[in-house]
Amino acid sequence: MSIFDVAVWKNGRVCMLDQRLLPHEEVYLEFSSAQEVADAIRSMVVRGAPAIGCATAFGVAVEAQRLAKQGFSGSWSEAMAPGLQILRESRPTAVNLTWALDRMQPLLDSTPKDEVPERLLQEAENIRLEDIESCKTMGRLGAEILPRPEGRPLAIMTHCNAGALATAGYGTALGVVRAARDLLKNIKVYANETRPYLQGARLTAWELLKDDIDTTLLTDGMAGHIMSLGLIDVVVVGTDRIAANGDVANKIGTYTLAVLAKRHDIPFIVAGPLSTIDLNTPDGAGIPIEERPSDEVTHCLGKRSAPEGVGVRNPAFDITPAELVTAIATEKGVVTAPSIKKIRELFA
Amino acid sequence: MSIFDVAVWKNGRVCMLDQRLLPHEEVYLEFSSAQEVADAIRSMVVRGAPAIGCATAFGVAVEAQRLAKQGFSGSWSEAMAPGLQILRESRPTAVNLTWALDRMQPLLDSTPKDEVPERLLQEAENIRLEDIESCKTMGRLGAEILPRPEGRPLAIMTHCNAGALATAGYGTALGVVRAARDLLKNIKVYANETRPYLQGARLTAWELLKDDIDTTLLTDGMAGHIMSLGLIDVVVVGTDRIAANGDVANKIGTYTLAVLAKRHDIPFIVAGPLSTIDLNTPDGAGIPIEERPSDEVTHCLGKRSAPEGVGVRNPAFDITPAELVTAIATEKGVVTAPSIKKIRELFA
Repeated sequence: MSIFDVAVWKNGRVCMLDQRLLPHEEVYLEFSSAQEVADAIRSMVVRGAPAIGCATAFGVAVEAQRLAKQGFSGSWSEAMAPGLQILRESRPTAVNLTWALDRMQPLLDSTPKDEVPERLLQEAENIRLEDIESCKTMGRLGAEILPRPEGRPLAIMTHCNAGALATAGYGTALGVVRAARDLLKNIKVYANETRPYLQGARLTAWELLKDDIDTTLLTDGMAGHIMSLGLIDVVVVGTDRIAANGDVANKIGTYTLAVLAKRHDIPFIVAGPLSTIDLNTPDGAGIPIEERPSDEVTHCLGKRSAPEGVGVRNPAFDITPAELVTAIATEKGVVTAPSIKKIRELFA
Repeated sequence: MSIFDVAVWKNGRVCMLDQRLLPHEEVYLEFSSAQEVADAIRSMVVRGAPAIGCATAFGVAVEAQRLAKQGFSGSWSEAMAPGLQILRESRPTAVNLTWALDRMQPLLDSTPKDEVPERLLQEAENIRLEDIESCKTMGRLGAEILPRPEGRPLAIMTHCNAGALATAGYGTALGVVRAARDLLKNIKVYANETRPYLQGARLTAWELLKDDIDTTLLTDGMAGHIMSLGLIDVVVVGTDRIAANGDVANKIGTYTLAVLAKRHDIPFIVAGPLSTIDLNTPDGAGIPIEERPSDEVTHCLGKRSAPEGVGVRNPAFDITPAELVTAIATEKGVVTAPSIKKIRELFA
């Protein structure tokens, strides 16, 4: 059902593709306790908010199985508390991690004692399948509004990795790409490498090639030139948070693409689940931008590129104002020319 | 007189900073024949069109000294022909290389025989000093039109390396930066790293820090976000060729910066000597864009980032239309809002 085993249940364990080794090696790791899963999340075996939520849920399930195997017979809430805490602290800023724990934890008390391990596993699997379904719906709805050039492939530009690898296995922006391939048959993707972390080169190019989608890699500075040649029909990106007015926070470089798309009259589409829309933040100015360590910028793939002593800025995200967004695709529908009113209606 | 010994005469040899090792090591190499200098140009010890012209001229001079030491007494034109040919072929597309040879070669016949080696050395030194003077004049004229913010440093964004390292030792865009520092005292530079070759990180950051200029490194995708924060007062870039109408060819990523600068009402200034203006090319559409090898994009600093089999585009340059250019700074004056008419007047 999913394209890759980003975080699944296998042989009584949590199985995850080690994303740190991509695109060079495809290694699947198995984890047998909450501690092991938390370590995997912390060390970036898995990344991407929905994927982390999914891994967390399986981490809770595997911890209960571990305790059950030890012949456990006490209070589930008490016995599971340390494991839940370890998971909660693995990446404290990932909102889906907390969300997954908040969904799993009540089951410890509400389920008959001997059914708890099985019930937790069911719920983790529900979370995984719901994410895939949500991405598929979002992808289909997003694909339906794409341009349809005659007699040549639809050329989609994307940024970073909002793909199968960032979710339970289908993707948000790349979910739209996958649905577009199914709908239009003939598509072509231009993937920006996305410095400093190179998610475009390492992850997006890898997963699209795995899925037999024609993919061309660009460095980030090439986007404007490639658009000026008339090679791009539409830009599709993911999002980390959408403010109530439709301003979009996404990976650094996204705003630049939106400005370029506007100049070239290219539609700019954002794909994200309803859970990324934050109605409590009125606009982009209220979204905090994480500043990451400077060595990501002074180095490439661990190798130093810049001299010691240079100043560095390393904002991980930027804000694209709603006026530059042609449409937001969610699992509940597509909002074109987003506004506070239209976005609120999604939740009605 | 110059900031760095990009290509100079020293101990009877041609001395060049090995730019391939920057920013990690500062190694100066010495060359004793046209063959050795040609090999150094081919292998990128020195790069940047004016710097290559300068190295070529010294290559001719050192070849004559080598022959003179061997007690040579025949025809200079004949004896020097192989060396000139080797130099000419070292990087056949660099226009300054041919220009330098065309300036040196006539001296072989027009100079009294026993004065040829000394006369060639004089001319090479003239070429070097003229380039530095030209850059200094261009820098001063460019600096005079920069914004002058009150009570805070002038913040200049630049791209690639149009610096001391690309010329005989002062720079075109970075010549404007150096002159701005002398004129305004208080400046700050934001340097884009400039993938795929990382000239911004490796060369621009290095030479500006050497010159005690406050420098902050960005990845290319950050430019729009940093401008949106109001942190940039002006963009100053170099150029590889300017068409008759003012369209500018420069390192890939320049066009994107120009589009972003326009959106944020930030002046966009191009610095280049008159020799980069090509009156025979009516507009940017006539400027050929070199497509470079794909491994520059699939790798960072020699390390593979992308999966095998991905498609790649690697245009080395892009075209910024004249309408996005606030001013062109040359050694003969500054042209604001460039047009065919105004550019022709520079040559009057």
